[in-house]
Amino acid sequence: MLDPEGNTTKRSLELLGYNNVNQVRVGKKIFLEIDGSSKEQVIEDVDKMCRKLLANPVIHNYEIRVD
Amino acid sequence: MLDPEGNTTKRSLELLGYNNVNQVRVGKKIFLEIDGSSKEQVIEDVDKMCRKLLANPVIHNYEIRVD
Repeated sequence: MLDPEGNTTKRSLELLGYNNVNQVRVGKKIFLEIDGSSKEQVIEDVDKMCRKLLANPVIHNYEIRVD
Repeated sequence: MLDPEGNTTKRSLELLGYNNVNQVRVGKKIFLEIDGSSKEQVIEDVDKMCRKLLANPVIHNYEIRVD
């Protein structure tokens, strides 16, 4: 998976003198405080939110965790 | 802590009809594959990277985890 931000960050770290960095991957973490009738309902809602707005399935992998 | 991206995301979800979202916070997760002589050395290096490039201490909280 392409990660332009990760590659740019790696090059910037190298320019700052950090040559011990083998790889950089950048992801986004979204915390949602959400009401739902059940854990399953919340997961279903959030999955739809991901496909509609929060993630671009073409270039992003996403994972849903319910605490 | 201000979270403009979180607030904008919440409003967008409401416009899509999701009124069960109480709060949205957006963070960045950076995965570094890095060589180091010890866990302590790696943490020290990464902390410096955070202060120099990866985070803005004025507006960001950051946490370092070594796996």
